[in-house]
Amino acid sequence: MKLATVRTATGTTAVRIEDDGAYDLGVADVGALLAQPDWRTSAATGGTPIALDGLDFAPVVPRPGKVLCVGLNYRTHILEMGRDLPEHPTLFAKFAEALIGATDDIALAPESDAVDWEAELTVVIGAPVRRADEAQAEAAIAGFTVMNDVTMRDWQFRTKEWLQGKTFEGTTPLGPVLVTPDELPGGVRPALTVTATVDGETVQKADTSDLVFDPVALVRYASTILTLQPGDVIATGTPGGVGHARKPPRYLADGSVLVTEISGIGRLQNRARTA
Amino acid sequence: MKLATVRTATGTTAVRIEDDGAYDLGVADVGALLAQPDWRTSAATGGTPIALDGLDFAPVVPRPGKVLCVGLNYRTHILEMGRDLPEHPTLFAKFAEALIGATDDIALAPESDAVDWEAELTVVIGAPVRRADEAQAEAAIAGFTVMNDVTMRDWQFRTKEWLQGKTFEGTTPLGPVLVTPDELPGGVRPALTVTATVDGETVQKADTSDLVFDPVALVRYASTILTLQPGDVIATGTPGGVGHARKPPRYLADGSVLVTEISGIGRLQNRARTA
Repeated sequence: MKLATVRTATGTTAVRIEDDGAYDLGVADVGALLAQPDWRTSAATGGTPIALDGLDFAPVVPRPGKVLCVGLNYRTHILEMGRDLPEHPTLFAKFAEALIGATDDIALAPESDAVDWEAELTVVIGAPVRRADEAQAEAAIAGFTVMNDVTMRDWQFRTKEWLQGKTFEGTTPLGPVLVTPDELPGGVRPALTVTATVDGETVQKADTSDLVFDPVALVRYASTILTLQPGDVIATGTPGGVGHARKPPRYLADGSVLVTEISGIGRLQNRARTA
Repeated sequence: MKLATVRTATGTTAVRIEDDGAYDLGVADVGALLAQPDWRTSAATGGTPIALDGLDFAPVVPRPGKVLCVGLNYRTHILEMGRDLPEHPTLFAKFAEALIGATDDIALAPESDAVDWEAELTVVIGAPVRRADEAQAEAAIAGFTVMNDVTMRDWQFRTKEWLQGKTFEGTTPLGPVLVTPDELPGGVRPALTVTATVDGETVQKADTSDLVFDPVALVRYASTILTLQPGDVIATGTPGGVGHARKPPRYLADGSVLVTEISGIGRLQNRARTA
């Protein structure tokens, strides 16, 4: 099952996306849908047909209660940089104001000269869970989506804590769809190809099976700290190839087109625009 | 004006607190109240009288959209440690699940052996604001409350990013009341005494006029990054005297009573309990 939140004349609505069309589920957004305990069955059939053409995607969950992000988490990239594999995942936050839809413009804040990309497989939570064991963590995963954890590097490194470079308003595409694990190779530990291109040039490419902490492990870890709720998202970290690590560094400029894609899930295409 | 969110048989309600009683304002909580553009006038009079005795305080804003926290921000403490004053505030996040009421128990997670205190003056936002100038930032401050940014030090320092030690569920008292700036010496830059005691021993004591980045400066800074919304809170940082810095370190144990007080605002009294 593929779910999305699309914009309408009066707000947003949750839809199921099939090959032949979209089906309006009559719920405000995917976050509200996932808060219904029976969403897996209620969303699977029915709905009011609408055309696939011209769907205007909002962030797949427009206002997650929590946006958790994970630092360095791709094994190959960590080892190639000569670092040891981490014992614990590095967690940081974004706030919902950062999120944009799959084809929205990325707001380049005039206060930053170093806006960078980070393509990421992203977990969407489908049921409340605390101190999850393996089976509970697997069951709490509604599915997966795509995020680009767009980052103001100059602000990220102003202080030791990254938050301020990670949560600029209107910078972080999330979507276009949530895909349930049954549709993905590897299920709740999906083996997918994640790529990012900037103006058509491939800058990141990796396999999500290379994650040090896989989605189930991340749900278990985060749920030790606090209850994960339906609609919460966990971005699982980005592979090598960010602009900041290039010599010389490369950043998004006014008009840059950033495409972020994960095989089997979907594609974000966002143009950077000076706000 | 003093506002609080108190628990009722059916949920919570926002109240105005006066010397002779509390007045039920018929709104679910202080967050919902602040979302009403005319809250300063609508909340100032009227309401259904209820007794002050036995009020059960919820977090003054039970579900802020954003809980922003500030790192080292007391001038005297920074200088006595031989550090330079910072050029930019260090920002990090908590999530709403961490919050508890003014007399609720602090949940000692069995996963941590190093639960510490951080008494903090906390700004509550009363109007949406982005890229605020000085006057806009002053006007966006609804008032002030008290937070103890209770921190799992072992988890805080597992990785470079502090978030995971800062947002354990049910650890962070916020309240008891929001006090509007007109009732405080110094107004939107209040000059108040903040103290923390553990089992009756004073462990932190400082003057909030010693902040490097005052509340107005913090609103301006944070609003550069994203829109601050009514009900958002900004904890302004803690002075010296945390348990982690003592030799030997001292942490909260099952049964420890943590009292956090700011003159002119109010008092949190929370017992630590193994969850």
